[in-house]
Amino acid sequence: MSALVTLTTDFGLDDAYVAAMKAAMLAVEPDLRLLDVSHAIEAQDVLGAAFLLRQVAPLTPPGTVHLVVVDPGVGTDRQALAARCGDHLFVGPDNGLVALIWDEVEPDEVVVLDRPAFWHSHAPSATFHGRDVFGPVAAHLASGRSLTEVGTPTARYQRLHWAHPIADDEGIQGWVVHVDRFGNAVTNIPRALLDAEPRSRTAKCYVGATILEGIHETYGDVPPGEPLALIGSAGLLEIGVNGGDASTLFSIPKGSRVSLVYGDA
Amino acid sequence: MSALVTLTTDFGLDDAYVAAMKAAMLAVEPDLRLLDVSHAIEAQDVLGAAFLLRQVAPLTPPGTVHLVVVDPGVGTDRQALAARCGDHLFVGPDNGLVALIWDEVEPDEVVVLDRPAFWHSHAPSATFHGRDVFGPVAAHLASGRSLTEVGTPTARYQRLHWAHPIADDEGIQGWVVHVDRFGNAVTNIPRALLDAEPRSRTAKCYVGATILEGIHETYGDVPPGEPLALIGSAGLLEIGVNGGDASTLFSIPKGSRVSLVYGDA
Amino acid sequence: MSALVTLTTDFGLDDAYVAAMKAAMLAVEPDLRLLDVSHAIEAQDVLGAAFLLRQVAPLTPPGTVHLVVVDPGVGTDRQALAARCGDHLFVGPDNGLVALIWDEVEPDEVVVLDRPAFWHSHAPSATFHGRDVFGPVAAHLASGRSLTEVGTPTARYQRLHWAHPIADDEGIQGWVVHVDRFGNAVTNIPRALLDAEPRSRTAKCYVGATILEGIHETYGDVPPGEPLALIGSAGLLEIGVNGGDASTLFSIPKGSRVSLVYGDA
Repeated sequence: MSALVTLTTDFGLDDAYVAAMKAAMLAVEPDLRLLDVSHAIEAQDVLGAAFLLRQVAPLTPPGTVHLVVVDPGVGTDRQALAARCGDHLFVGPDNGLVALIWDEVEPDEVVVLDRPAFWHSHAPSATFHGRDVFGPVAAHLASGRSLTEVGTPTARYQRLHWAHPIADDEGIQGWVVHVDRFGNAVTNIPRALLDAEPRSRTAKCYVGATILEGIHETYGDVPPGEPLALIGSAGLLEIGVNGGDASTLFSIPKGSRVSLVYGDA
Repeated sequence: MSALVTLTTDFGLDDAYVAAMKAAMLAVEPDLRLLDVSHAIEAQDVLGAAFLLRQVAPLTPPGTVHLVVVDPGVGTDRQALAARCGDHLFVGPDNGLVALIWDEVEPDEVVVLDRPAFWHSHAPSATFHGRDVFGPVAAHLASGRSLTEVGTPTARYQRLHWAHPIADDEGIQGWVVHVDRFGNAVTNIPRALLDAEPRSRTAKCYVGATILEGIHETYGDVPPGEPLALIGSAGLLEIGVNGGDASTLFSIPKGSRVSLVYGDA
Repeated sequence: MSALVTLTTDFGLDDAYVAAMKAAMLAVEPDLRLLDVSHAIEAQDVLGAAFLLRQVAPLTPPGTVHLVVVDPGVGTDRQALAARCGDHLFVGPDNGLVALIWDEVEPDEVVVLDRPAFWHSHAPSATFHGRDVFGPVAAHLASGRSLTEVGTPTARYQRLHWAHPIADDEGIQGWVVHVDRFGNAVTNIPRALLDAEPRSRTAKCYVGATILEGIHETYGDVPPGEPLALIGSAGLLEIGVNGGDASTLFSIPKGSRVSLVYGDA
């Protein structure tokens, strides 16, 4: 049985790009096990892709290959990479994403994909490396090839960083990094930061068109239709409404500022 | 080979929720066979989920596990359940849906999911039971665990009912329960009700901005662009247009009233 | 292991149609290997389906079954067909699509699907042949049945043709056949036509609200935000913008005329 391969792209599902990439992968390994994370990433939104993948990658077994094709640099001379962090593998363009998955841990091993024998064609197109390079290499890795078979070690690669919330003695300031389908506004404020400060539990939360009192555990803690701040399933502070769409009802788009102010401040 | 698991949720495909749930399931059983029914159910629309699943469940083999996570009560104390109807299994929140799949047949066996050993984590999040409870339990059931291994029998659970059309000597009154992608307006009037009354075949059908004559077998029974009433693939009376979008062209949104009036009335 | 089956439909993913068809297929062969090409084809857009499938089919292995259910003639007496082109099989309504996949090569073998023993039910619905006829037949073919087991040879079937660009001594005129998710406008001008005329490389390209100079290899050949003509991943001339949406920025919808005029003309 091949290893699991997760797929995260900005290809959408209206074109044939996802299918073409998968077909090129299945040509390498017909029994490949695939798990779509999302293909609805906004075009070239590397941080958005990282935000989704980091909710899935920790649930996958050792040896899983994470194929991420969000590629603002397609057609330039940006490198094609594969990397290892612990016992997980990553394949994709050199877009800085790998460091974002496990909270800015450096990868243990990074290779440049420079071995056309593992590509779909020995002369790949200049614009569709997902089909021609990344997909086939991911399939080879899932089938048991090693990083140093498919590429050459390198120490030169991009690193992106999450923008961290700012905490001081008066409170915490962060912002909304994702609005989900239900209208929940997910912030970049992690549970650990809240757990470290008991006053956060009863803080005032200033966000969009509303002020919320305290941090709750679940939607049912407030009456239907009422907003609340809670720690969501991604382990991040989230603004929701019991049975409603917080982002629309309280004007909280992606990028909104969220300020927790401690009650005794 | 594991049993088949169908998935029906209101998670959408833009977030990582579906992938996170599947990853938690594959952690239980790497060889799981999954069939997506739809993840585009409107948020918390239990009847909409039931309407789609009842078109698929009867086509699946004995032993299939139907995982349905549409959960208006998430974060309250609503129960987590698994149930058996004949040789099909259901897993999801206690939302009343099970009774809707096989026309209000009572389940043969219902258990409360109270055994954390079968969950993703022994301390699940308060807001994402799909990933933490329902998905893993569905995977365990598909791998051969029994209902009484994963939960404790209960007789207390919700039952929803379909709103039935009203038939009398003059005609039948029902309404539109679903508008599909092609603009076909599917009603809650089943074939059996029409078959029981020969006059229905030549009835006048009052709906939206039009009046239709008789019940047809297929779109080709009328010229291109013309509307008709027919018995659709779900076994329900449907308003369509040959090669067009009936819902838009004749103002027939979900919820529209549909009245069949017998010709000799 | 069964053969691979690709799926291309205009069913969308909001209804249960795709799942119902797959369930009927899995009832024939539980271990079926499925690859979704797209279910977002515009309703009854046979050319759109062909345009996507021809980007995927050549990547799939010998023996693959391509199930295409885009069916403008559903409910009329149009035939249900299966066909073989070389070592690939096609199943679907008689909509002319097969000839479009391999550039108007005639199929080697075509049969009418007239053997209800290979259908989902011996009395299929009049409106959902994907579930009742095409899906199950595709599953039987993937499991090793031959064309002449599931149908009767015929020489009567539709053939559609691609509209070809017009080339003369002064230039080439074609048009936009697809706009992808990124706003790239893909034309019907193939690489071969450009390769046959060295002057095309430096031609002026008149399209939408702009005039472009020469044909490039990749987006990075122009500065960010600038438009260019290039040969895209489908092997066709494409109008793109480095990091932007060409179709929107330069008013190039599907159907737009594209004129290459040679520099020395």
